[in-house]
Amino acid sequence: MRGAVMYAPGDIRVIDRDVPTILEPTDAILRVSAACICGSDLWPWRGIDPVTSPTPMGHEYVGVVEQVGRDVTTIRVGDFVVGSFFASDNTCEICQAGYQTHCVHRQPATAGGAQSELLRVPLADGTLVATPAMPEPDLIPSLLAASDVLGTGWFAAVAADVGPGKTVAVVGDGAVGLLAVLAAKQLGAERIIAMSRHGDRQMLAREYGATDIVTERGDDGVARVKELTGGLGAHSVIEAVGTQESMMQAIRSTRPGGHVGYVGVTHDVQIPGEELFFSGVHLHGGPAPVRRFLPELIDLIWNRVIDPGKVFDLTLPLDRTAEGYTAMDKRTAIKVLLQP
Amino acid sequence: MRGAVMYAPGDIRVIDRDVPTILEPTDAILRVSAACICGSDLWPWRGIDPVTSPTPMGHEYVGVVEQVGRDVTTIRVGDFVVGSFFASDNTCEICQAGYQTHCVHRQPATAGGAQSELLRVPLADGTLVATPAMPEPDLIPSLLAASDVLGTGWFAAVAADVGPGKTVAVVGDGAVGLLAVLAAKQLGAERIIAMSRHGDRQMLAREYGATDIVTERGDDGVARVKELTGGLGAHSVIEAVGTQESMMQAIRSTRPGGHVGYVGVTHDVQIPGEELFFSGVHLHGGPAPVRRFLPELIDLIWNRVIDPGKVFDLTLPLDRTAEGYTAMDKRTAIKVLLQP
Repeated sequence: MRGAVMYAPGDIRVIDRDVPTILEPTDAILRVSAACICGSDLWPWRGIDPVTSPTPMGHEYVGVVEQVGRDVTTIRVGDFVVGSFFASDNTCEICQAGYQTHCVHRQPATAGGAQSELLRVPLADGTLVATPAMPEPDLIPSLLAASDVLGTGWFAAVAADVGPGKTVAVVGDGAVGLLAVLAAKQLGAERIIAMSRHGDRQMLAREYGATDIVTERGDDGVARVKELTGGLGAHSVIEAVGTQESMMQAIRSTRPGGHVGYVGVTHDVQIPGEELFFSGVHLHGGPAPVRRFLPELIDLIWNRVIDPGKVFDLTLPLDRTAEGYTAMDKRTAIKVLLQP
Repeated sequence: MRGAVMYAPGDIRVIDRDVPTILEPTDAILRVSAACICGSDLWPWRGIDPVTSPTPMGHEYVGVVEQVGRDVTTIRVGDFVVGSFFASDNTCEICQAGYQTHCVHRQPATAGGAQSELLRVPLADGTLVATPAMPEPDLIPSLLAASDVLGTGWFAAVAADVGPGKTVAVVGDGAVGLLAVLAAKQLGAERIIAMSRHGDRQMLAREYGATDIVTERGDDGVARVKELTGGLGAHSVIEAVGTQESMMQAIRSTRPGGHVGYVGVTHDVQIPGEELFFSGVHLHGGPAPVRRFLPELIDLIWNRVIDPGKVFDLTLPLDRTAEGYTAMDKRTAIKVLLQP
């Protein structure tokens, strides 16, 4: 089968790889219908995270179940499923509290790389959620989005305590940031400030529910959010970048007692304790427990209430994966969908 | 009138000072019935915070109103009142959300120093809460505790989302940590782990509701809390110290999805973003909005449901304030009450 493997920064190749097989009785094998490239895949691509050995890539996927292990009871061969990037049993105390990404039995769900034709997913019952039937093809991008970027944006909004009557600011205009705007709208936010300096992303943010666009960054961005919120700052701020600047911008844009939901994978970020102390904000985030939200998100997509698939502005066949990385790196595409 | 002034680290003197007067129509002048020494007063005493000019000390107080400005409407001359360390209007959007320490009109409530016979308190209506009548003398220590250490411990427990069925760990066995134990008990915690290596403090922690005592610190303390919680960590962890070690101990003792409530005034603390991200905890804290809790705390004290005044294990006349600082610094006293 064909699958994408990263050999070194900037060097990703789609090669013939071994067909995955059931290793544990709780595994499932999927035929991947669609996969995609994540902002976090760019860290090794850019050489910021090391590539120590050839690495199968991709952790976002939807597909059809081809095989299940003997202990799999709820997921069946032929199901169309959406999964998340961490496999979870969905029964432990941590999962039951809604933090499946920290499941006591968690493991990477996509060690074999989702940017491929076939994928082994461990703990299939606790990790995968089946759609009510085979989806119409036009729903596939949205279901794929649920697998990570929508689930992550949604978690960020929940972590930021978004709700009716609130003003929300979103730092980051990547797919996660844009879908956090969508989530904020669905969760009833009154006003949504999207921070973006790219015309196409601003447009999608508006379509997803942004009421204000702020193009300034850093301290200027903070000042603009304060200006828009009577000097107080937003009730809820979503951080979807992961740098020192974006994290501090998020904290400083939040009113005392407000909530920061952060989902940008933090790289070399140090939060100054004294500033955080005197800010009086709530801080919550981390790797999104997408599994918590999948049933609800699939339902919203299935009933065509939301259309998160619009973040995919470039679709490529799997064999052209390298072009997709370049497009994301150069920001000529918001998010790239790959068709095996 | 007599009042305590710090001249340099280790040099605090009770001297004759000008009698405070009404400066703003929203001020009140109190005759201080009792004041005390705070852990945070030890920062300048120890030379960790600079003392750039002679500084009136003390920010915890109860007293009788002697005079009010012409715009004061709810607080009356003769009232016995409890106040908090920040003055707030208690009407702005931030106050209404329960964050009076960040009131848009906030100012220090005790610029004149509460370790004195008389004290000017600004924004009296929004800052002070009157007791139902003149208190019995034995209630005064508890009412004084409400002014800061109880209010702060209570806020820490609320920030840590303490509630029925939860396991709570408390890092720090000073007055705030001990009263956080009391708060956790009142808020319905099922299990309360107090981290302390001092016999007298352990005893008071037990009396306030601690079910377990952990004497280990740092990584060993974390390991012990994990051991007591099935490997998962506590649901709620209260940080009441303010050092790098205590903050990391608190974060690491919390299960994914759990809550850290931190009220130790952070000095030179840097929170590593990546570790926080992957911890999956909620973080909230800062200068406690004591005013939010005062009516409820006064009620609990008035009805003798709680007895937070037990943290005062040394009472001195105001003129012996310096001895009090030494006792707190040497940890021969948990908390010192001063009688003007």
